[in-house]
Amino acid sequence: MSALPTNYQIYLDAFERILHDYCAGLNAPEGLAEGMRYSLLAGGKRLRPVLFFAALDAFGVDWKKERELALALECIHTYSLIHDDLPAMDNDDLRRGKPSNHKKFGEGNAILAGDALLSEAFTLAIFAAKDEPHRRAGEILARAAGAEGMVAGQYADLAAESDELAGEKELAFIYENKTAQLIRAPLMMAAAIAGKDETPMKGFGTALGILFQMTDDILDVKGESTNMGKTLGKDAEENKLTCVRVYGLEGAERRADQLAENAKRLLSRMDAKTQFFEELVEYVRERDR
Amino acid sequence: MSALPTNYQIYLDAFERILHDYCAGLNAPEGLAEGMRYSLLAGGKRLRPVLFFAALDAFGVDWKKERELALALECIHTYSLIHDDLPAMDNDDLRRGKPSNHKKFGEGNAILAGDALLSEAFTLAIFAAKDEPHRRAGEILARAAGAEGMVAGQYADLAAESDELAGEKELAFIYENKTAQLIRAPLMMAAAIAGKDETPMKGFGTALGILFQMTDDILDVKGESTNMGKTLGKDAEENKLTCVRVYGLEGAERRADQLAENAKRLLSRMDAKTQFFEELVEYVRERDR
Repeated sequence: MSALPTNYQIYLDAFERILHDYCAGLNAPEGLAEGMRYSLLAGGKRLRPVLFFAALDAFGVDWKKERELALALECIHTYSLIHDDLPAMDNDDLRRGKPSNHKKFGEGNAILAGDALLSEAFTLAIFAAKDEPHRRAGEILARAAGAEGMVAGQYADLAAESDELAGEKELAFIYENKTAQLIRAPLMMAAAIAGKDETPMKGFGTALGILFQMTDDILDVKGESTNMGKTLGKDAEENKLTCVRVYGLEGAERRADQLAENAKRLLSRMDAKTQFFEELVEYVRERDR
Repeated sequence: MSALPTNYQIYLDAFERILHDYCAGLNAPEGLAEGMRYSLLAGGKRLRPVLFFAALDAFGVDWKKERELALALECIHTYSLIHDDLPAMDNDDLRRGKPSNHKKFGEGNAILAGDALLSEAFTLAIFAAKDEPHRRAGEILARAAGAEGMVAGQYADLAAESDELAGEKELAFIYENKTAQLIRAPLMMAAAIAGKDETPMKGFGTALGILFQMTDDILDVKGESTNMGKTLGKDAEENKLTCVRVYGLEGAERRADQLAENAKRLLSRMDAKTQFFEELVEYVRERDR
């Protein structure tokens, strides 16, 4: 596995401080706040807020000031994990090496913790929307999260489990919406705040997001549970539609390599400093080696 | 039962047209959109958007132009019903005389339809936030819906079911947050858009919201299933904390009468045309006679 991209740790440390401050000030009944904090503070690489900070930095914007939208991104990601782990969805008992939210607090409370986190994202984004670039950034986030974005991907993912005919086309829809939407969103949001064209970041972010999900699915087959902090081998067991099911392990690896090359080519056309993102593509691609 | 307030039908018909247009244009995978439409179009008195239009009208604002926030209100109300009916929450098979969303589409899809509707509210509100009064209105809505609002009320409601010591204090918290938050929100949002003080509408809306929930709980004991379109007598069966459990039926009726008087007194201090709201208080109070 290659090293974290240059500056990743700086963005990550800054976000962790912002997140801890935010969690300390959460305004909610104590039991509900406890469930929200449990999942928010369960660790993880904070990929989405880090991407947001890195892209703002690449565009020359003072990224340290953009706290609300960074938090909103992590709140949406965290709510989606809580709801995704529920028995009626992926039914996962383990998340980041700990009991998943509903195993710890019960199903009803987990549904509510997810609802609360999505509502928090909404509150944070609309609080931040005090000029048109920030309003637009919040709109990108809202659309990426919802019925034409991440939730659409979750829906298709669930539907594919009981659809024996689901194949390449359904897989592309799931990868783009379930995962890539919320990975390209921070990049496009940064472009909006910087007053730049969102399109190049949309293209690159889509490739990066799909690459991320492909390597995740490859790791589910190849990896070890202790390193991943979640139950492995579940995809096949649950008849999940993944790149390994559609293309086989070798075919999936080959496609991931092509996608990584494609992502780097898209970067070369960008009007921003791209070193961080080049290193990130390498880092993501190398995860499953 | 007294008649609907003057102009209620006008606001309601306008909203139904807006809602049908919106549903026809929903951008989501067909199965997901079907689940969202099923619950959005299941009927109901559309109290929250009607309150929003009526309050805008009372403040002299052109209410017909305020489509997005009216839709956002109904999307949030509808998502809350879908999640509230889930087996892990209130476990209700019937809603507005039809199978509840999860009985019709399955639990996983119902969770996602709710998530999608909350995301839609977020998208609509941030789309509308193109000036400070509308941004502020969206912020009122977001806070009313979330961890310091409706979700906090749902959480307390669920917790009270297994808390034999829960009483008057917990009941007041549940009534204010679970129900009154999303009933006073449209009134406060209208004040924000009109550039008026939000405080008087907050006071009146809180009283109206609590009155609404009290009469609902009284009806659960007194009403007939065919008129209500939902399962009755469930509150007692599930050990729900209601005004009837805390004060008895007679005590609850007496308190509802006092609250209706109080609500009307609050109206008399308002800098707006208040006839609609006076009639509405009567209408809500008379529901259980």
